[in-house]
Amino acid sequence: MRTTLILMIFVTSFFEQTNAQPNNLMPWPAEMNVAEGQFLINKNLRICVDGNPDKRFYPNLVRFVKQLSKRTTIPFDRDTVIISSPSASLQIKIVRKGEVKLGEDESYSLKIGNDRILLTSETELGAMHGLQTLLQLLDRNKESFYFQNLEISDKPRFAWRGLMIDACRHFIPVEVIKRNIDAMAMVKLNVFHWHLSEDQGFRVESKVFPKLHQLGSNGEFYTQEQIKEVISYANERGIRVMPEFDIPGHATAWMVGYPELASASGSYKVEKFFGVFDPTIDPTKKETYKFFEKFIKEISLLFPDEFMHIGGDENNGLQWNNNPKIQEFMKQRGIKNNHELQAYFNGKLLKILTKNGKRMIGWDEIFQTSLPNSIVIHSWRGRESMEDAARKGYQSVLSSGYYIDLFKHASEYYLNDPLPKDNKLTPVEQSRILGGEATMWAELVNGENIDSRIWPRTAAIAERFWSSGELNNVDDMYRRLEVISLRLEDLGLEHIKCREMMMRRLCNGSSIEPLRVLLDAAEPLKGYKRHGSQRYTTEYPLSRPVDIALSDAPDFVRFRLLYSEYLKSRSKEPYSKMIDLLDKWASNQASFNFLISNNVVLSEIKELSDNLTELAFITRKLLLQLNSGITIEEAERDALKTQIDRLNIPVAEMELPLSILTLDIINQLNNEPKVE
Amino acid sequence: MRTTLILMIFVTSFFEQTNAQPNNLMPWPAEMNVAEGQFLINKNLRICVDGNPDKRFYPNLVRFVKQLSKRTTIPFDRDTVIISSPSASLQIKIVRKGEVKLGEDESYSLKIGNDRILLTSETELGAMHGLQTLLQLLDRNKESFYFQNLEISDKPRFAWRGLMIDACRHFIPVEVIKRNIDAMAMVKLNVFHWHLSEDQGFRVESKVFPKLHQLGSNGEFYTQEQIKEVISYANERGIRVMPEFDIPGHATAWMVGYPELASASGSYKVEKFFGVFDPTIDPTKKETYKFFEKFIKEISLLFPDEFMHIGGDENNGLQWNNNPKIQEFMKQRGIKNNHELQAYFNGKLLKILTKNGKRMIGWDEIFQTSLPNSIVIHSWRGRESMEDAARKGYQSVLSSGYYIDLFKHASEYYLNDPLPKDNKLTPVEQSRILGGEATMWAELVNGENIDSRIWPRTAAIAERFWSSGELNNVDDMYRRLEVISLRLEDLGLEHIKCREMMMRRLCNGSSIEPLRVLLDAAEPLKGYKRHGSQRYTTEYPLSRPVDIALSDAPDFVRFRLLYSEYLKSRSKEPYSKMIDLLDKWASNQASFNFLISNNVVLSEIKELSDNLTELAFITRKLLLQLNSGITIEEAERDALKTQIDRLNIPVAEMELPLSILTLDIINQLNNEPKVE
Repeated sequence: MRTTLILMIFVTSFFEQTNAQPNNLMPWPAEMNVAEGQFLINKNLRICVDGNPDKRFYPNLVRFVKQLSKRTTIPFDRDTVIISSPSASLQIKIVRKGEVKLGEDESYSLKIGNDRILLTSETELGAMHGLQTLLQLLDRNKESFYFQNLEISDKPRFAWRGLMIDACRHFIPVEVIKRNIDAMAMVKLNVFHWHLSEDQGFRVESKVFPKLHQLGSNGEFYTQEQIKEVISYANERGIRVMPEFDIPGHATAWMVGYPELASASGSYKVEKFFGVFDPTIDPTKKETYKFFEKFIKEISLLFPDEFMHIGGDENNGLQWNNNPKIQEFMKQRGIKNNHELQAYFNGKLLKILTKNGKRMIGWDEIFQTSLPNSIVIHSWRGRESMEDAARKGYQSVLSSGYYIDLFKHASEYYLNDPLPKDNKLTPVEQSRILGGEATMWAELVNGENIDSRIWPRTAAIAERFWSSGELNNVDDMYRRLEVISLRLEDLGLEHIKCREMMMRRLCNGSSIEPLRVLLDAAEPLKGYKRHGSQRYTTEYPLSRPVDIALSDAPDFVRFRLLYSEYLKSRSKEPYSKMIDLLDKWASNQASFNFLISNNVVLSEIKELSDNLTELAFITRKLLLQLNSGITIEEAERDALKTQIDRLNIPVAEMELPLSILTLDIINQLNNEPKVE
Repeated sequence: MRTTLILMIFVTSFFEQTNAQPNNLMPWPAEMNVAEGQFLINKNLRICVDGNPDKRFYPNLVRFVKQLSKRTTIPFDRDTVIISSPSASLQIKIVRKGEVKLGEDESYSLKIGNDRILLTSETELGAMHGLQTLLQLLDRNKESFYFQNLEISDKPRFAWRGLMIDACRHFIPVEVIKRNIDAMAMVKLNVFHWHLSEDQGFRVESKVFPKLHQLGSNGEFYTQEQIKEVISYANERGIRVMPEFDIPGHATAWMVGYPELASASGSYKVEKFFGVFDPTIDPTKKETYKFFEKFIKEISLLFPDEFMHIGGDENNGLQWNNNPKIQEFMKQRGIKNNHELQAYFNGKLLKILTKNGKRMIGWDEIFQTSLPNSIVIHSWRGRESMEDAARKGYQSVLSSGYYIDLFKHASEYYLNDPLPKDNKLTPVEQSRILGGEATMWAELVNGENIDSRIWPRTAAIAERFWSSGELNNVDDMYRRLEVISLRLEDLGLEHIKCREMMMRRLCNGSSIEPLRVLLDAAEPLKGYKRHGSQRYTTEYPLSRPVDIALSDAPDFVRFRLLYSEYLKSRSKEPYSKMIDLLDKWASNQASFNFLISNNVVLSEIKELSDNLTELAFITRKLLLQLNSGITIEEAERDALKTQIDRLNIPVAEMELPLSILTLDIINQLNNEPKVE
């Protein structure tokens, strides 16, 4: 509780101080005390490592120095990292070798003085987190780069902090996976959950059943060499790699090469549409288990992690219902429904997994008390099922509320807590909530734009998993997200770059500015609404404006922060900045129209551009009234609301979030007295 | 000659027409006739392939469709490519399988009509070039995407069209190599020359001599798997991969693991400085050749190309001079000097290469008539040595004048011809000039900024190697380079993206605009001058402003084109555009100073910013005078020249190319009458 109190003080005091204070960390540490003075960074930096770390620590240290060098432009000597030396300016002490496994000690302490930095930890995993914190602490002024003097004592709230990437609905190249692992390490995530089989593709080279990848992937799959490379890459960064092979549903791609696995005869082809499809593994055949005996053995050797994810979600049961043999099988064994049949299947799988030294994890649907509580439930349908499992003695991981493919605002993910304050679980039950995972399903992303869908907002989710549950200042989260976004780019993430490139491609040599102004104010439709507008397939190039727009429209985020500041203070600065933004939007129409005059590919968002301009004019007028304390007639208000409703009709799968604030201004207008 | 004439007509007529005309091709085709009408692109596109291409053609076709899809946003059906069908809208006919080797037929013809496109070629290599041409022909208007109706008949002027990348002085990651190979294919280059060993690093995994990469690379090397992957990647794109192992000089890295190879005893470490160093292979020991017997065998199996580059440049001979045993060896055999000793070494190597089925190529220094004329001379010191070799019956490749690491203007490289009109060679001698190679030496580039040093300007060099020697309109080359630059980005090249990212890193959250304005007007010092300013090592992070500035400052290129247009026409449009640019530069100082007020890393270019503003003011005033026909006094002129000289002193290894034009305006002032 002491930690929490100290933390709260910093949350309230720091964020109002100047940039010189280290207030940009994400995730925020468990405890931090800032002191006077600064450690100046120059070419003489020397680093020594004492104790007994695993060898994975050293490449992390080399990367730390390289990052520091890149950002400061200081050419550190190749001998910056030296053998144990009491004179070194950065002293690192690590007690023992860590293991990249669930529950390993990841804590660290950091003490920065004028002349000396001390980083200590139980395992190198903690020290690696400490180096990431240090990089985030790097600051500059007119004369030099420095670290502010301070003390940090830090450890994670949850042991399981994951990011899932679906590499099936669209294939995600190895280099994209790798840079996302770098980003995970930066924000202290520690589980990379790799979704590797789906209706739309089987993405792993199998030497035992080569038709799986040969016929099930359209040629886009990871070789075993590449998978080993990714596992080693992640391990070096303290990150577990957990594979998912989704069965018995979501399994069309398996059946292209091995139709005998299916519960209905016939031939199969790799699915190109998205949704829930009928093909389902036949759980009644002996051959099925012979297949999985061999397959799981191969895969268990390839992926060293303790856990294997078997998916298990969204089996629609149609192939089972329609297969007389399966119905007969159920009747004979007293299996009452498809859920029980799936539990039967999972029980058989569990034996195979156990034999291969693996623990089973699967989506909600695998939860059945007939299975032992060594399995872990991955909750995607809601927190209730997770808590239910916890009460019944099962460990679980939460992804419900962290579906980053749904284009929701970062704040919504941020405020979703695996273990909220008001939960009704006992301490023992609470300890069964292992943590959570952000899930990047890939219907509407590919290697080109996936970074911009995952980052920076997954850093906010990472903070939820790492930091105190008391932390819930959304405005400050958004402020820090902008900083972390640049740090992610330093690592090679393409979330900023790819957007500009995609805009340049659409604009074809014309200035991208009018398009940027528009897209920075628009958001893709949220939830599954984009799929309502047209039936997407894997063939869509995802290079349209909506594929560039962000779930948190950056200019709108700025506007909202200004508006909330203005409502509090009624001061001039946020007001005039809002007017500037509104002017920018209002005046964008002309240049945008010029841009599209010879460019078919942008014509689909002409109306969006028109709407933004119209909405900006209305909002500007209303804001002026609010600032002058002029009220509004009911008739005018109703007319405006109708107008705003019209402007808020989706265009090209996008909407203008500004409209919500415009409506709020209308509501404020008759409630608020004029304040100077 | 007919081809040339037709071409010239297009050069002069096209470039003045509207954008609707296909005038953006690079390299420019040998022959092109434009017709009325357009082939409209829609979802119904169907492509069929007839004839007997190598299977490498199909992945190229898939990529073609994907590129087309990305740019048009049209989701082409997975069945766009169909079996032989007379109704397909894009008909491709390929006579026979091609081989990726020197001299293979790469010609193609393209005929675009309203409803049908016909692409024909002898080998799939030609058709692949045709697909690249077609992608460059993609155009758009308000209603649709289209290809202009036309006929093209095209083939390369030179058979050897290369790009060398030095992966030693800085290691260049595999994914960077791969995207550069994509870019090469786009501009019809066909030789990737991979410089793989140097004083600063040995970059290939050797299974026979593992200490080569283990001790000679600081851990940054290509595994044999990766090399095979790159070779296969290049081969699929019609590009040869020729390795270079530079011996006997430039060989320090070999000796870290195998000091016995050196001509002086002692221990060696990987060099971190740049230049010419002493360590040289000992050509007098039998063990040396035993080593190379084994090494070349291993490498010959790894790299299937007909040629192996043995470097051979810049052996300073000091270790030879100082080794009594080597001196004795020379005396005994009547070897008169180091050049002859190196020829002796090369003769022995040649035998080993020949035994392994390889032809030898090396830099100028290997040229010695004691070696048979099966060897190829790679000329880096000047065209004279190349022509000398040609007269003596040797084939050669030109890189002198194509050193893209020297930060020269693209125009200079562009106008450098391997076989200029005024050459004195006979037709037979001329036929020995195989082509040329752009060379990207890596002292001052790394994986992060290398794309911006190679592209887009290597496209101009590629045009020199592919297209008619008559093509020499520099202004139009620059205009097309801007277009090609965006097409390169579509492929994944980071030459634009990386600059913006690097600026964002330097600006640390502030707007990058003031920095962009400055860097878009500044150029890195040319030639080897940057090395004069400080002694660079491999440890420099290359993240300073000079590492972002381009050899052809984009805003200056624009200014120069406007100026040349203005001098011709004295019209208002270029004049007022020049004034706009000058105003932008003149007003940049204030915002730049604000940017650096809290940012140490940008302070090194404050003076450059001051100079730009001062120079812009001067130039603006002079331009005004020129436009008004006001002459200038001699005293004032002299004072101005002194002032400009001062403004032109390099700052942070950069200079302002504008000053040259400012001086030119001064010269114009007293020569020119006022023109309305």
